[in-house]
Amino acid sequence: MPWYELSSADDSKLNELAEKYHLHPLHLEDSRSADERIKVEQTPEYTFAVLKPIKFTQGETGKQDTVSFSTIDIFAGNHDGEPFFITIADPNCPATEEALARARREGSDDKPARLLYLIMDTIVDLYFPAIDHYDERIDDLEDRAIGRPDPSTLQEVFAIKRQLIDLRRVLVGTRDAALHLQRDPGTIVDAEHQPFIRDIYDHVVRLLDSVETQRDLVNNSLDIYLSSVANRTNEVMKVLTVLGTIALPVIAISGIYGMNLKGLPFEDSPHSVAIVAALTIGSTLALLILLKRRNWF
Amino acid sequence: MPWYELSSADDSKLNELAEKYHLHPLHLEDSRSADERIKVEQTPEYTFAVLKPIKFTQGETGKQDTVSFSTIDIFAGNHDGEPFFITIADPNCPATEEALARARREGSDDKPARLLYLIMDTIVDLYFPAIDHYDERIDDLEDRAIGRPDPSTLQEVFAIKRQLIDLRRVLVGTRDAALHLQRDPGTIVDAEHQPFIRDIYDHVVRLLDSVETQRDLVNNSLDIYLSSVANRTNEVMKVLTVLGTIALPVIAISGIYGMNLKGLPFEDSPHSVAIVAALTIGSTLALLILLKRRNWF
Amino acid sequence: MPWYELSSADDSKLNELAEKYHLHPLHLEDSRSADERIKVEQTPEYTFAVLKPIKFTQGETGKQDTVSFSTIDIFAGNHDGEPFFITIADPNCPATEEALARARREGSDDKPARLLYLIMDTIVDLYFPAIDHYDERIDDLEDRAIGRPDPSTLQEVFAIKRQLIDLRRVLVGTRDAALHLQRDPGTIVDAEHQPFIRDIYDHVVRLLDSVETQRDLVNNSLDIYLSSVANRTNEVMKVLTVLGTIALPVIAISGIYGMNLKGLPFEDSPHSVAIVAALTIGSTLALLILLKRRNWF
Amino acid sequence: MPWYELSSADDSKLNELAEKYHLHPLHLEDSRSADERIKVEQTPEYTFAVLKPIKFTQGETGKQDTVSFSTIDIFAGNHDGEPFFITIADPNCPATEEALARARREGSDDKPARLLYLIMDTIVDLYFPAIDHYDERIDDLEDRAIGRPDPSTLQEVFAIKRQLIDLRRVLVGTRDAALHLQRDPGTIVDAEHQPFIRDIYDHVVRLLDSVETQRDLVNNSLDIYLSSVANRTNEVMKVLTVLGTIALPVIAISGIYGMNLKGLPFEDSPHSVAIVAALTIGSTLALLILLKRRNWF
Amino acid sequence: MPWYELSSADDSKLNELAEKYHLHPLHLEDSRSADERIKVEQTPEYTFAVLKPIKFTQGETGKQDTVSFSTIDIFAGNHDGEPFFITIADPNCPATEEALARARREGSDDKPARLLYLIMDTIVDLYFPAIDHYDERIDDLEDRAIGRPDPSTLQEVFAIKRQLIDLRRVLVGTRDAALHLQRDPGTIVDAEHQPFIRDIYDHVVRLLDSVETQRDLVNNSLDIYLSSVANRTNEVMKVLTVLGTIALPVIAISGIYGMNLKGLPFEDSPHSVAIVAALTIGSTLALLILLKRRNWF
Repeated sequence: MPWYELSSADDSKLNELAEKYHLHPLHLEDSRSADERIKVEQTPEYTFAVLKPIKFTQGETGKQDTVSFSTIDIFAGNHDGEPFFITIADPNCPATEEALARARREGSDDKPARLLYLIMDTIVDLYFPAIDHYDERIDDLEDRAIGRPDPSTLQEVFAIKRQLIDLRRVLVGTRDAALHLQRDPGTIVDAEHQPFIRDIYDHVVRLLDSVETQRDLVNNSLDIYLSSVANRTNEVMKVLTVLGTIALPVIAISGIYGMNLKGLPFEDSPHSVAIVAALTIGSTLALLILLKRRNWF
Repeated sequence: MPWYELSSADDSKLNELAEKYHLHPLHLEDSRSADERIKVEQTPEYTFAVLKPIKFTQGETGKQDTVSFSTIDIFAGNHDGEPFFITIADPNCPATEEALARARREGSDDKPARLLYLIMDTIVDLYFPAIDHYDERIDDLEDRAIGRPDPSTLQEVFAIKRQLIDLRRVLVGTRDAALHLQRDPGTIVDAEHQPFIRDIYDHVVRLLDSVETQRDLVNNSLDIYLSSVANRTNEVMKVLTVLGTIALPVIAISGIYGMNLKGLPFEDSPHSVAIVAALTIGSTLALLILLKRRNWF
Repeated sequence: MPWYELSSADDSKLNELAEKYHLHPLHLEDSRSADERIKVEQTPEYTFAVLKPIKFTQGETGKQDTVSFSTIDIFAGNHDGEPFFITIADPNCPATEEALARARREGSDDKPARLLYLIMDTIVDLYFPAIDHYDERIDDLEDRAIGRPDPSTLQEVFAIKRQLIDLRRVLVGTRDAALHLQRDPGTIVDAEHQPFIRDIYDHVVRLLDSVETQRDLVNNSLDIYLSSVANRTNEVMKVLTVLGTIALPVIAISGIYGMNLKGLPFEDSPHSVAIVAALTIGSTLALLILLKRRNWF
Repeated sequence: MPWYELSSADDSKLNELAEKYHLHPLHLEDSRSADERIKVEQTPEYTFAVLKPIKFTQGETGKQDTVSFSTIDIFAGNHDGEPFFITIADPNCPATEEALARARREGSDDKPARLLYLIMDTIVDLYFPAIDHYDERIDDLEDRAIGRPDPSTLQEVFAIKRQLIDLRRVLVGTRDAALHLQRDPGTIVDAEHQPFIRDIYDHVVRLLDSVETQRDLVNNSLDIYLSSVANRTNEVMKVLTVLGTIALPVIAISGIYGMNLKGLPFEDSPHSVAIVAALTIGSTLALLILLKRRNWF
Repeated sequence: MPWYELSSADDSKLNELAEKYHLHPLHLEDSRSADERIKVEQTPEYTFAVLKPIKFTQGETGKQDTVSFSTIDIFAGNHDGEPFFITIADPNCPATEEALARARREGSDDKPARLLYLIMDTIVDLYFPAIDHYDERIDDLEDRAIGRPDPSTLQEVFAIKRQLIDLRRVLVGTRDAALHLQRDPGTIVDAEHQPFIRDIYDHVVRLLDSVETQRDLVNNSLDIYLSSVANRTNEVMKVLTVLGTIALPVIAISGIYGMNLKGLPFEDSPHSVAIVAALTIGSTLALLILLKRRNWF
C-alpha cells in the first residue's frame, strides 16, 4: 500500500495525488490553511482527518514551558479497491514524529484504518503529559495564592486559564472526531478497529474530565487569591488601627502637658514625670488589652 | 437566469416581482422591517434567506472602530421550471458589495444555489477580520487591566462585551441558517452544493468558537481589573501604614519633650538634642525593620 | 360564527357555554383562577389558550412606569361541525382591547384560527415596546453606575432584574404556546394559518433574545457598579494617604522645635524661622514628587 | 375496595399485605427507609408512589417558621381483577391528614387512580403556602439588605438558600413522578384521569418556576448585601478622610506656633490670636469646599 | 461456577484466564493501568466492569480524614454456556473486602449477575458515609466562616471543594455504569436482576443529588467567608474612625494652648484648666453622639 508522507501542504506532489485520488478541493484548501480545525470528513472514496499533536516549547529560565499545537492531515482511503494513505505533517514536531514512527513500526501494509488508529492513539497519549504539566503548575499556584499573593500569581492564573481553554478546544475536537469515526458507517474504520477507536474516545473523555477539573481548580485559585488579598487588606487595617491606638495616649497626654496653662494636675509634683509616664503607659496598655480581648491580634 | 438586484425593499419593483414569483406576504414584510433576524425559510417555490454582512465604521482618532451589521435579503427559486434570483441589499456596505461582486464574477448563469453559496461564503469570510479586531482590543485590554486599571478600562471591557454579544447573535443565526440549508431537503441547495454549505457551516462554528473564547477572555480581563484594584487598595493601605509607622516615634518623642514638666530624662544633659535625635531615629528604624521582616515592602 | 366576548370568568353565561360546548372542568377552573399560566391545550372539540397581554402603568413623577400582565382566555373550536369562539378578557387592559378590536376588524366570520392568530399576533407585537422601555432604563443605568454609583442605582438594578425575570417567564410561556400550536396536529390551526403562527413564534424568539441580552447588560451594570465603588474606595484611600503625606513634615518638624530642649540646630540663628519653613516645605515637596512619580495623582 | 391505612411501615400488617398483594421487597425496603426519595414505580400488579407532604413547624418568637417534609407511601393496584389501595403515612402531619381526609370524602369506591389523584393534588396544593412564606421572607430580606446589612441578614440569606434547595428537590421529584404517571402506559392512571394528573404536573411546574425565581431573588439579596457593605466601607473611609482634612490645619498651625523659635509671623502682633484663628478656620473651610466640590459629602 | 479472585492485575494467572475466556486486550490493559475510569463494557462473551470502592484514611490528630478510591475490575460472563466470574481487587481496601464478603455470603453459585449486583450494591451503599462525613465538615465550616474567618477556613473550603469534585466524578461514572447495565440488552444482567440494578441507580442518583447540594453549600460557605471578611474590614474601619474622632478634640485643643502666643481665650482665668478640659471632653462627647446617631457603634 502506498503511504505518501508529505512535510508540507505546499509540496507540489500534493497536486498530483489530489488528481490521482480525487481529493476534494475543500479538503486541499483546509490542509493549506494556517488555522485548521480538528475534523473527520468522509467522501465516498476516502476519510479525511485533521489532528493536532501537542508541542512543548522549553521556557526560558524561571519561565514556564509553553504548550502549543502542530497539525497533521491524513487522507486514508481506497482507490479502485486499492488502499492508499497520505499524511501531511510538520516533521519538526516531536509528537508528530513519534506518531509516524510508531505507525511505520506497528502498522500493517494493507490496512489504512490501522495506520490511522496508531497515529491518533499516539497523538492522544501524548496529551497526558500536558495534564501533568498543568497539575504541577496549579498545585504551585494554589500555594502561591495562599502564601504570597502578588500580581504575578494573577498573571499565572490567567495564563493557565487561557491555555486550558485552548487545550480543551483541541480535546473537544478530537473527541468529536473519534465519535465520528465510531458512528459514521462509511469511514475507513472497519468493525475490527472499532473497539480501538472507542478506546481512544475513552481516553479523550478522561482527558476532558481532567481539564474540566483543572479549570475548576484554577477558578478556585482565583477565589483563593482574591480572598487572600481581602484578608491582607483586613490585616493591614488592623495594624494601622493598633498603631493609632498605641499613638493616641502619648499624643493626647503630651499635648495636654504641652499647653501653656497654669494649674495642670500633678504639674508641680516632684514626681510629675513619673506620674505622667505611668498615666501614658497605663492607658496604652488598657487600650491594647481591650483590642486583645476582641481578638484583634 | 434573471437576477434582480434591488437596493431597497421600498423599490416598487419588489411588488411586481412579488406578484410574478408568488413571494409570501410575511417575507415581504420581513424584508421591509428595520430589525430583521437572520433566517432561511422555504416555500414550495423558493428559498428565502436573510443574512447580515459586517460593517466596520472608522472610529474617531483615539477611538476604536465600531462594528455593525447591514442586511441582505435573498429570494432564490424556480418559477415554472425557470430559476430566478432576487437580492435586496444596501449598496453602501462594502461587505455586501464584495459578496455581490464575487457572485457576479464566479456565479454561473443557471444555478441560483451557487449564487447563494458565493454570497453567503463571502459574508462569512468577512466576519474573520472582526475576530482579529477583537483579539487586538482584548490583548490591549489585558495589558491595561494589569498595568493601569482606570475607569476607561472598565468602559472598554463592557463595550467589548456588548459588541461580542451582538456578534455572537449574528453568528448563531448564520450557523442555524447554514444548518437549515444543509438539513432541509426542500431548499434550493442541491447535492452538488451541499459540501460547500457544510464548509460555510464549519467556518461559522469556528468563528463561534473564537467568540466564545473571546468572551471568556473579556471576563478574565474584568477579573484582572477587579483584582488589580483590590491589590492597589492593599498597596495604598500599606503605604499609609508605613507612613503612620514612620511618623509615630517623632510625634511621640517630640510631644514628650514639648511638655512643660521639669525632670524629663536627659533634659539637662548637654547632649540632650543628640540623645533625643538618636532615640527617635533608632525607634523609627526598629519599626521599619519589623515591617520589613513581615514582608510589607 | 358565534363569538362570545365575556369580560369575566364569573359571568354566569360561562356556565351555559360550558355545558353547550362541553368545556373541560379543569379549563373552567383555570380561567377562574387568579394566577393562570400561559398555555395551549387541546381537547377533541376545541383549543384552549391562555395568553398574557402586557399592561403599562404610568409611574408617579420621577418614578419609572411599571409593567404588569393581564390575562385573556380563548376557547376556539367546532361543535357539531359549527365553529365557535369564546374570549374571557379584562376590557380595561389597552393591549387586550387592541387585540380584540383588530380581530373584530380583520377576522373572517368562519375561521376561528384566524381570530386566534390575530389576537395572539397583536399581543406579541405589543411586547416590543416593553423591550424599548427596558433598553432606555438600562442605558440610563449604565451611565449612572459609572458616573455616580449610589444605593438608588443598586435598587434600580434589582428592580429591572426582577421585572425581566417576569417578562422572560411570560415570553417563554408564549413561545411554548406558539410551538404547541405549530406542532400539535389536533389544534384549531390549519395548514393555511401555520406560516402565521410560525411568524409569531419567530417574533417571540427575537423578543426572548433581546431579553437575554438585557439580562446580560443588567448584570454588566451590577459589575460596573461594584467596580466603580471599589475604584472610589481606592481613590478615597489615596486622598487620605496624600493628606497624611502632606501633614507628616509639618507635624514632625513643628514637634521637634516645640521641644523644651536647648541646642536644637538653627535655633539661635536669626533666620531660624525661614530655615525651618524651608525645611518643612522642602520635605513636603519631596514626598509629593515621590508620590507623583509612582502615579498616585 | 379495601383501603389499608397504615401509620407506620413497621406495622406488622404490612408484612401480611406484602404477601397477599406480592409487594416487591425493594419497595418494602424503601417504605421502611428513613430517607426515601420521591418516586413512582410500576410493577405488573400495582403502582408504588412515594410523596412528600409539607410540614410547617412554628418557630420560636422572633424566629422564622421552618419547613420540613413528611413522607407518604402509596401502593395502588389490582389483585386478581380486584382493586386495592394501601397508604403508609404519618398521621401527625397536617398536610398528610388533609390529603387523606379529602380522598376519603371525594374518592369513589372502585377507582384507586382517583384516590391517588386526590392525595397527590392536595399535597401539591399545600406547597403553594410555602412559596408565599418564602416570598414574604425574601421581601423582608431585601429591605434588610439595603437598609441595615448585618451578619444576621447574611445568615437569613443562607438559611433561605438552603431551604429552597430542599424545596426544589422535592418539587423536581414530584414533577418527575407526575410525568411518569402521565407517560408510562402501565400505571394505575387510566385515560379518564390523565387530564387530572396533567393538571397536577402543570401546578408543580408553576411551583418550580416560582422557586427558581425565588432563588434568583435570594442571590440578588446577597449581591445587594455585599454592595451595601462595600458602599458603607466607602462611606466610612470618606468620613475618616473628612476628619483628617478638618484636623490637618489646626494641628499644623498650632504645631508651628508651638515651636520655641523667635520671629514667627504675626507673633508679636496684638491680634496674633485672631489672625492665627482666622488662618486656621480659613484653611479648614477651603479644604472642606474642595471636598464638597468633588462630591464627597 | 468458578470465581477467580485476583489481588492484582500483575498476577500471572490473569494471562491464563485471558486466554481461556478470550478477554479483550484493551480490557487487560485497562485493568493494569494505574488510572482507570469507571465503566461497563460488553463483549459477546462477557461484561467488563470497573468500579471504585471508597477508602477512608484516618487523618492525623486535628486533621480531617481523607477520602480516596480503590479500584475493582470485574469480568462476568458465559464461556461455552458455562458462567464464570473474575475479580481483580486490592484486598487492603475495607470497602472492597466488605463487598466481596457479602457476595461470597449471599451470592448463588450459578448467577454471575447476582454476584455483580451484590458487589456493586455494597460499594454504592458505602458511599453514603462519605456524604455524612462531608455534611459534618460543611456544617462545621459554615460556623467557622461566620464566627472566625481565617485563612485555614479558606483552605478547608477549597479542600472540600476538591474532594467533592472527585467524589462527584466517581458517582457520575457509577451512575452511567448502572444505566448501561439497565439499558444495554446484551449485558450479563437478566430481567430478574433489572429491578435491583435500577435500585442501585436510584441510590447513586440520590447520592449525586446530595453531592450537588453540598457543592452549593460549600460555595455558600465561601460567600459567607468573603462577606464576613468584608464585614470585618468595615468594622475595623469604623473603630479606626471612632478612634480618630476621639483623638481630634484633645489634639486640636492641646495644640492651640501649646502655641506660644499671648491672649488665648481663658488663658489667664484661674479656672483655665477646668474650662479647657470641659471644652475638650464636651466636643469629644458631641462627636461621639453624632456617630452614635448614625448607627456607627
